[in-house]
Amino acid sequence: MSSSVSPLAPTDVPDMPAIAGVKLATAEAGIRYKNRTDVLLVVMDKDTAVAGVFTRSKCPSAPVEWCRTKLSRGKARALVVNSGNANAFTGKTGRQSTTLTAQIAAKAVGCSPNEVFLASTGVIGEPLDATKFDGVLGTLAGVATPDDWMGAARAIMTTDTFPKVATAKAKLGKTTVTINGMAKGAGMIMPDMATMLSFVFTDAPIAPAALQSLLKSGVEDTFNAVTIDGDTSTSDTLLAFATGAAAANGAPKISHASDVRLKAFVKALQGVLADLSEQVARDGEGARKLVEVIVEGATTKASARKIAMSVANSPLVKTAIAGEDANWGRVVMAVGKAGEPANRDKLSISFNGIRVAKSGARDPSYNETEVSEAMKNPKIQIKIGLGLGKGRDRVLTCDLTEEYVAINGDYRS
Amino acid sequence: MSSSVSPLAPTDVPDMPAIAGVKLATAEAGIRYKNRTDVLLVVMDKDTAVAGVFTRSKCPSAPVEWCRTKLSRGKARALVVNSGNANAFTGKTGRQSTTLTAQIAAKAVGCSPNEVFLASTGVIGEPLDATKFDGVLGTLAGVATPDDWMGAARAIMTTDTFPKVATAKAKLGKTTVTINGMAKGAGMIMPDMATMLSFVFTDAPIAPAALQSLLKSGVEDTFNAVTIDGDTSTSDTLLAFATGAAAANGAPKISHASDVRLKAFVKALQGVLADLSEQVARDGEGARKLVEVIVEGATTKASARKIAMSVANSPLVKTAIAGEDANWGRVVMAVGKAGEPANRDKLSISFNGIRVAKSGARDPSYNETEVSEAMKNPKIQIKIGLGLGKGRDRVLTCDLTEEYVAINGDYRS
Repeated sequence: MSSSVSPLAPTDVPDMPAIAGVKLATAEAGIRYKNRTDVLLVVMDKDTAVAGVFTRSKCPSAPVEWCRTKLSRGKARALVVNSGNANAFTGKTGRQSTTLTAQIAAKAVGCSPNEVFLASTGVIGEPLDATKFDGVLGTLAGVATPDDWMGAARAIMTTDTFPKVATAKAKLGKTTVTINGMAKGAGMIMPDMATMLSFVFTDAPIAPAALQSLLKSGVEDTFNAVTIDGDTSTSDTLLAFATGAAAANGAPKISHASDVRLKAFVKALQGVLADLSEQVARDGEGARKLVEVIVEGATTKASARKIAMSVANSPLVKTAIAGEDANWGRVVMAVGKAGEPANRDKLSISFNGIRVAKSGARDPSYNETEVSEAMKNPKIQIKIGLGLGKGRDRVLTCDLTEEYVAINGDYRS
Repeated sequence: MSSSVSPLAPTDVPDMPAIAGVKLATAEAGIRYKNRTDVLLVVMDKDTAVAGVFTRSKCPSAPVEWCRTKLSRGKARALVVNSGNANAFTGKTGRQSTTLTAQIAAKAVGCSPNEVFLASTGVIGEPLDATKFDGVLGTLAGVATPDDWMGAARAIMTTDTFPKVATAKAKLGKTTVTINGMAKGAGMIMPDMATMLSFVFTDAPIAPAALQSLLKSGVEDTFNAVTIDGDTSTSDTLLAFATGAAAANGAPKISHASDVRLKAFVKALQGVLADLSEQVARDGEGARKLVEVIVEGATTKASARKIAMSVANSPLVKTAIAGEDANWGRVVMAVGKAGEPANRDKLSISFNGIRVAKSGARDPSYNETEVSEAMKNPKIQIKIGLGLGKGRDRVLTCDLTEEYVAINGDYRS
């Protein structure tokens, strides 16, 4: 684990309000780490709606399989998250471990194991000893409070260098509802999903199917548009929980995602997801630069996304940015390898607003000193104009530094 | 550029024989580098057949476009290769530069510009001043000799740490024919093509269409099965030249790739391509380990290739190998993200013959000390069994080290 906080960490950390119907508690269960919290229990009121999106890996972790199975019921009472061990590729033992964890949590909270949701992050392939949760979860259920969002965000970290939280308020009918979220990265980040773990909570009364629909469309331009290293985790999980407690204050009960009364809520949710996913990019392993890749003029948005991802995942582009080198030749290379419609002689490329290439060649007004100065900025925007159509998309990533290699070369040892 | 030779460089460098009908010469044209050769001229006898395969980049370099246009004629008299500047993304200037270079070479050799083939490697996006070839190529044509293959291989290097050559002999009819090849890597290596530049020469009398067919099938399991960083160059070029001089010694003239008399020749050609492409992997930027990824039991060979590439291109797998960490969890991750049929619970994984995972979980006989010892080997074989079908494939790559990042973070400056 890296000991120093990413230089890209947000300077403003929000005060996280309580969410009616949600209580949190953390503990040191000794899963892998010493002297730090590694387990989070979230207890939710009865009838809390749940929705989720998960990794598209063909080899998902046991907790991902567990959540997928339980999601169809649409109801949640508890969420258990541990860091240090991903319970992935653990075979039959992994499934037994999820079942046992859910049973322990259900007993602690007083619900059915089917209402318990699970997420694990950390090393893959090591058996997770769920008996370590015995006792711990019972204690946590007793001491859970509505307040400790930062502690919760901290307990789920692995190689993250800072806890990631976001919050927003929105009007639903005439009632103000709240959305709180947390996330953890920070390597093995690539759609779909782009983060390993993220959890969002609201007191808005939204039915499970509607919540699922909002979440699915919400990730498209947020979590699914972030990549650190092109590696897709076996454990990527985003869960959303809606306690519905705001109904007591007059918030209307929402059954359909198309309900026009959701407008402000959708915007607020989108804001929380965008905030959290950007924080994941800002905490990319070894990251020193936040990189925004914008592709314009593609034939379609999907084509723009593919090209943006090709640029954002190119080791040569990412190392050049680490070296503060406006190496737009490598951007051309990454556009070319994407396999999407592109015409070299119509291509234009800018770094932080300074156009370095146009019409398939170096910009005549190119000034190396000016561009080199711009590359020292901790935020780098690469804008690519294809000149073919109206397709536009945006992807966030970070640079590739020697520290990324150092972190990942001895993570397990 | 790296100054020290890759620890994976071959210890046996072959004596390169002459190829009847081929002469080579190199010079310092001052394209970019100082105090080293950076231009190669190869002069070939009349009626030399030519074949080529190129990058699939949508933004190819000007020399790639030049060669593609000239290839349909099937005849070559000269090859000009320069290092230091790729003449890629140089727009109209780039096209003018290729035309001028071909004109200068044609005059020097005494042939048509249409019989001149070109390749450039180095920085992208910088104009290539072809007037620097004026005079130089004329001199080279006068001093070209059949012998200096190592000098030729050296002149085309960029970040390569050693020159790459290979040679083989084969019977064609009752006559012995020779195949010589050279290649340069070493970053931005990914199908298709897997190397930036490679050139193969033979005295066998093989017609252009047949040569093209042999070359195309020859790269499938050699150059196209090598990846360094997943980045595809705009300049990848493999050209093959057959002077036909062996016909004078009784070698039969071959018109079709399906000719049974080609059997030994095809094997020898395959050997040269395999040797060169492995050398490219051995000289991956910053490489300390040669990594062979074998996938067995996939539904098809194509599916096995995709999975092997996903593993070979995963930064997390590659950094783990750099750290001598048998982190098979990351292999599972990379298998899972490939999107190809895979069943977690049937997966088995070995490192250098030691099985670490089987049936979707850690091998019960797993011994960390034994595996850790094996990971110190400079050659690492990752074998993945999917247990689904008979599809098998093999891909070569190298590890991802801090030096890769250092090399690529300041290559241009």
